[in-house]
Amino acid sequence: MKINKNMKILIIGLGLIGGSYASILSKKGYEVGAITLNKEDIDYAINNKIIKHGKTKVSKKYISTFDVVIFALYPKTFVEFIKKYHCYFKNNAIISDVSGVKESIVYKIQDLLKDDNVEFISCHPMAGKEVSGVKNASCDLFKNANFIITPTSKNSNEAIEFATSLAKELEFANVSTLSVEKHDEMIAFLSQLTHCIAITLMTCNDSTHLKDYTGDSFRDLTRIASINENMWSELFMLNKEKLIEQMNLFEKQFKILKDYIEKEDVDSMKQMMKLSTYRRSFFNKK
Amino acid sequence: MKINKNMKILIIGLGLIGGSYASILSKKGYEVGAITLNKEDIDYAINNKIIKHGKTKVSKKYISTFDVVIFALYPKTFVEFIKKYHCYFKNNAIISDVSGVKESIVYKIQDLLKDDNVEFISCHPMAGKEVSGVKNASCDLFKNANFIITPTSKNSNEAIEFATSLAKELEFANVSTLSVEKHDEMIAFLSQLTHCIAITLMTCNDSTHLKDYTGDSFRDLTRIASINENMWSELFMLNKEKLIEQMNLFEKQFKILKDYIEKEDVDSMKQMMKLSTYRRSFFNKK
Repeated sequence: MKINKNMKILIIGLGLIGGSYASILSKKGYEVGAITLNKEDIDYAINNKIIKHGKTKVSKKYISTFDVVIFALYPKTFVEFIKKYHCYFKNNAIISDVSGVKESIVYKIQDLLKDDNVEFISCHPMAGKEVSGVKNASCDLFKNANFIITPTSKNSNEAIEFATSLAKELEFANVSTLSVEKHDEMIAFLSQLTHCIAITLMTCNDSTHLKDYTGDSFRDLTRIASINENMWSELFMLNKEKLIEQMNLFEKQFKILKDYIEKEDVDSMKQMMKLSTYRRSFFNKK
Repeated sequence: MKINKNMKILIIGLGLIGGSYASILSKKGYEVGAITLNKEDIDYAINNKIIKHGKTKVSKKYISTFDVVIFALYPKTFVEFIKKYHCYFKNNAIISDVSGVKESIVYKIQDLLKDDNVEFISCHPMAGKEVSGVKNASCDLFKNANFIITPTSKNSNEAIEFATSLAKELEFANVSTLSVEKHDEMIAFLSQLTHCIAITLMTCNDSTHLKDYTGDSFRDLTRIASINENMWSELFMLNKEKLIEQMNLFEKQFKILKDYIEKEDVDSMKQMMKLSTYRRSFFNKK
């Protein structure tokens, strides 16, 4: 079952990602509503045609009118919401999310919803910015980005088909599926470890007096050092073991490189640089 | 004494940086010549109006016609060249370079030239690309980039004034001076440590199967993991102690962050992230 314009769509949490989902879907002619904490975000979104209507309070009357409900909340808030309000959804509603960690929440959410005649298909739109909030939402946020669907054995093929069509409607460059476990391993390495490195680089040395000398290398490596501490500390805690494992691998390899430098083992250093150059070539944008 | 169009300029080493110097200066009406290893680079540069003439062999007859000589070679090759040919320069010639490390070469070069009636003023144009060679040279390479002059007690004010005017002619966004020691400390942190991190991240885990899932974070942190192993291993060796010192600081801070994550010390983690965000704000491009 693909997404279609008869489906009413509810975004819960109108921040950067939720707001960008809403912007694109509204622009394409879907009826999009929202529930979010601040009245001014609702007003801004209505005035800018990002949503058609919205609420700051959770009500069964409102939620039960939607065919599709997308949670764009922090993972723990999402779980709390489902615990309290899982019985508010319309029959056969499709529920999705944008959470950056999966194993710690997906099974729990599916279990909480198991008798509610709805289906939860978990997704991770791999996009972001260093700024947050619906005012930074953009119809271009997902161009060139990856969309990952993380189905479990509880999911139907129809729900996967739905999520795939949603990603295409949102104009993601690439859609793939991964198990929740593989997703979290991947995210520990590609996203969480990189944020740990950027934070470390930015705080290991009082560097502010160096701003006039920096080239692009330092700027690139620390772009993500400007970080939302509430969201990322939560994401780190929810994927702690896999992240620690990746940090250990990084530490070990960094020590090997340091040893080569200390021992002036230029040949081994060059080998490592060649491997690095070779592997990096796979990551150039298409 | 400022640079002026009566000065004939020689570039020794026609690669990415030397080629970009030559391109800009030729475009502005200077007479630019070159000495470089490969005949095809000379031909390419002449055909593309990057230089007016060039040689693949070193000759006193050619070198002694130039008022300004800029070395765009690897640091060790630069030192070897000066050892062999230091007596070839024109009287009162100004000699400069583009080397990424200073302490290990600048005093040595000034000493080698001390009786030759020329002045060596060392400079570091902080710009680069992941590709090399004169064919990738560009008139835009230095826009938004920093140019650092590293004078010693042997340098005259006139030479510093010359280097400043050269940087402006090359359209660098920002020109500053630093001692050779401060330069090397800064470069160990901002440039060499960042390259070590990128190489480590790219080689600590066989990541090639992850290319379909990556977001911009990983791409940004590994852009410089595509690295010229000959140049960078030489730069690392020539600044070994200062680099090891920065690697130690990074390792120590990374371990602190890992401990916070292991102990689930969310408050300390958030403090570190806030400091990171605060410090990063100074590095936004103007």
